[in-house]
Amino acid sequence: MMDFNYSNPTKIFFGKNKLKVLPEQIKRYGSKVLLVYGGGSIKRNGIYDNIVKLLKDNSIDFWELSGVEPNPRITTVRKGIDICRKNNIELVLAVGGGSTIDCSKVVAAGFYYEKDPWNIVKAPYRIKKVLPVASVLTIAATGSEMDTFAVITNMDTNEKLGTGHPDMAPVFSILDPTYTFTVPKNQTAAGTADIMSHTFEDYFSKPDSAFLQNKISEAILKTCINYGKKALDKPDDYEARANLMWASSLAIDGLASYGKDANWCVHPMEHELSAFYDITHGVGLAILTPVWMKYILDESTVDKFVEYGINVWEIDASKDKYDIANMAIDKTREFFNLLGIPSKLTEVGIGEDRLEIMAQGAVRYGKIGGIRKLDKDDVLNIYKAAL
Amino acid sequence: MMDFNYSNPTKIFFGKNKLKVLPEQIKRYGSKVLLVYGGGSIKRNGIYDNIVKLLKDNSIDFWELSGVEPNPRITTVRKGIDICRKNNIELVLAVGGGSTIDCSKVVAAGFYYEKDPWNIVKAPYRIKKVLPVASVLTIAATGSEMDTFAVITNMDTNEKLGTGHPDMAPVFSILDPTYTFTVPKNQTAAGTADIMSHTFEDYFSKPDSAFLQNKISEAILKTCINYGKKALDKPDDYEARANLMWASSLAIDGLASYGKDANWCVHPMEHELSAFYDITHGVGLAILTPVWMKYILDESTVDKFVEYGINVWEIDASKDKYDIANMAIDKTREFFNLLGIPSKLTEVGIGEDRLEIMAQGAVRYGKIGGIRKLDKDDVLNIYKAAL
Repeated sequence: MMDFNYSNPTKIFFGKNKLKVLPEQIKRYGSKVLLVYGGGSIKRNGIYDNIVKLLKDNSIDFWELSGVEPNPRITTVRKGIDICRKNNIELVLAVGGGSTIDCSKVVAAGFYYEKDPWNIVKAPYRIKKVLPVASVLTIAATGSEMDTFAVITNMDTNEKLGTGHPDMAPVFSILDPTYTFTVPKNQTAAGTADIMSHTFEDYFSKPDSAFLQNKISEAILKTCINYGKKALDKPDDYEARANLMWASSLAIDGLASYGKDANWCVHPMEHELSAFYDITHGVGLAILTPVWMKYILDESTVDKFVEYGINVWEIDASKDKYDIANMAIDKTREFFNLLGIPSKLTEVGIGEDRLEIMAQGAVRYGKIGGIRKLDKDDVLNIYKAAL
Repeated sequence: MMDFNYSNPTKIFFGKNKLKVLPEQIKRYGSKVLLVYGGGSIKRNGIYDNIVKLLKDNSIDFWELSGVEPNPRITTVRKGIDICRKNNIELVLAVGGGSTIDCSKVVAAGFYYEKDPWNIVKAPYRIKKVLPVASVLTIAATGSEMDTFAVITNMDTNEKLGTGHPDMAPVFSILDPTYTFTVPKNQTAAGTADIMSHTFEDYFSKPDSAFLQNKISEAILKTCINYGKKALDKPDDYEARANLMWASSLAIDGLASYGKDANWCVHPMEHELSAFYDITHGVGLAILTPVWMKYILDESTVDKFVEYGINVWEIDASKDKYDIANMAIDKTREFFNLLGIPSKLTEVGIGEDRLEIMAQGAVRYGKIGGIRKLDKDDVLNIYKAAL
C-alpha cells in the first residue's frame, strides 16, 4: 500500500426528503446563492420548484445559471463567474449531475481568479481560493458530489480537461435517490458505466498490496452489476437507485484509489472523444473499456484479470487463467450491452478521421494507465479496435 | 437502504514517516498540547522521543497525561481535564490506541463541561463543545482515530459505557503502519478481532437492501482474515500492518453502518465483561462472537449466515444452508483460535457468579441486536454458553 492523505469533508444528507436541510445548510455560508442547473429536467420533475420555494421561504436570494451542457463548457463557466461577481454570491448551488456540479466548482474557483478561468482548468495549481460549493444530486454517475475534481470542455480548442482543488469538494451534498427516478434509461446506463469505469481505473492500477482498496473496488463493481439493470427495468426501484447513488459517491472519493498509484487511462482516452464529438461520457467509457481490457491482457496483467473474473463475475476459479480473463472481459462488454449501450465508436458517429489527433491528446501529459502504460500508438490501436 | 447523514472530517496522514506533519497540523489549532499516552510502550519504541523532539523544535508547549488504562477510566479522564484547565490546553494529542484516543476525546469534551465528566459519558447530549483532538495511532483495532465515539469505564460502579459527539472526531490522525510493528502478538490478535466485531455488528443488522454497505463489510472482513495471521507471524510485514490499520479506520467510520439499522449487541455484552473483570476488549469480543452467532442462528437469520459463509469464507454455495451457516460460524471461531485467542470465558477468569448482573447491564437501555433482538435472558444464555 502506498502512502496517502485522506480527508472527506463533504457533509452528505442521504435519503428521502432530505432537501429540507437545504436552507439551514446554505445559511452557514451566506444568503446569496448562484443556482446552477442543466437543460431543465429539474423543472419538469418539480425539484426546481421545491428548491425555489425553500429559498424564498427562508429569505435566501438567488440568481440562476441554467443550460449547463452535458459536457460543461468553459463559456458557461465564464457566464457563471460574471453573475457571481456582479451579485456578491456566497455559495454556488449545483442542482443536477456531474456536469452541473463540475461547472459549479470551476465557477466557484474562477470567482477568485482574476484572469480567464480556462487557465485554472489547464493548470489547477493556480487555484488559491474557492467559493463554497454545494450540490443537490439528480443522477448517479460522476461522484462529483463528494470529490475535489471537475472536468471542463473547451470547444474552441477541442480540449476536455480535468482540474481540481481540495476546496472544490462540495461543503454539503443532498442525495435523494427518488430524484433519480426520472433519469432516462440511456442516462442511467451511462451513469452506471461511469461509476464502474472510475472503479476500473483504480482496480487495474498498482500495487496489488492495497488489498482493502481492491476489495472496496469489487464491492462497488458488484453493486453496479447487481442494480444497474434493475434501475433500467424499474426506474422507481428505490433500493437500486439508492445503491447506485451511494456507489457513485464512494467510487471516487479516494477509498478505492488512495494507497494505489491510480494512473487513469480510459478517462483521458474518452475525454478526447467527448471533446471532439461531444458524445455522452459514460457511453464512450463503456465502449472503450472492454477494448482496452483486451488490449492490455498479457502475461503481465492476466493475474489481475483472473482476480477480477473470480471475485466480481464469480467465474469458476478452476478454469484456465486466460479463459477466466477473457470471460471476465466478455462479461463486462455484455453487461454494458445489457444496459443498452453500443459496443462500437461508429455507432455513436465516430469514424477514422480524427483518431490520430485524439490519440495525441490523450497522452498530452505523458503515458497513461495503471497496470499497463499506454503511449500514443497504444491509444490509437485501442481507438481503431473500438471502431 | 435507510436514510443517513455522513461526514468524515478527520484528516488522515497514512504511511511511513508521516509524523513529520505533526507540528504544522498542531499549529492550526494552537501551541499548547496535552500529550496523552498509555503504559509506556511509546517510550520503549522511540515514538515518544520523536514526538517530544518535534514539539520542542517547533516551540509547541506540552503537558503529559500518562498511564491511560487498557479500559480507560473516568478517574484518568478527570486528571486530564484538570491539566487542560490549569494550562489552557488548545489541543489534546493522543499517542496510542483506542484506549488512549477514547480517553483524550472525553478529556477534550469534559474541558468545556463544568460538572463531573462521568455525566457526559452517561448522557452524551450534555456535550456542547469539544477541544480539538488529534491522534498518532500505534495499534490497529478500535477505529477511534476516525470516529466520533469513546468508551470509558467507571470501576466504582462497574460500568463501561460509550459516549460520542460529532466534534469528538479527531481533527487529524497520523497512521504509520510501522508504528504497529512492535505491537505484541496477543494485542495484534485482539485488535484484529475488534475490527472484525465492529464489522459483524453492522453486517448482521437490517436491512439487507443496504447492499453496498454489506459488500464493504465483506471487504473489511476479508482483509482481516487475509492479514491477521500474517501480522502475527511476521510483525514487521508492512502490507499486513497497513491493511489492518486502514481496515480499523474504515470499519467504524460509518461506511459499513450508515444506511443500516446498526443496533450493536456483542459490544454491549462485552463491555459488561470488561467493566467487571477488566479483560482485553478484543478477547471478550472474540469469545462471545461465535457463541452469539450460534445462538441467533435460526430460520429467520440463516440466509444472512449463508451470505456470510459464501462471500467471506468462500464456502461452496451448493451445500445445505444450515451446513454453510454452521461452517461459517466454526470458521470464525477457528480463525480467532488461530490468532491465539481463547474460546471460553473461563479461560480469562470469568465464572458464573456475576453473569446475572452483567446480563442486566448489557440491556440497560433495552433490547440489543440487529437481525435478532436479545433480551436479558438471551444475553444470560449466551454468557453461559461461552463459559
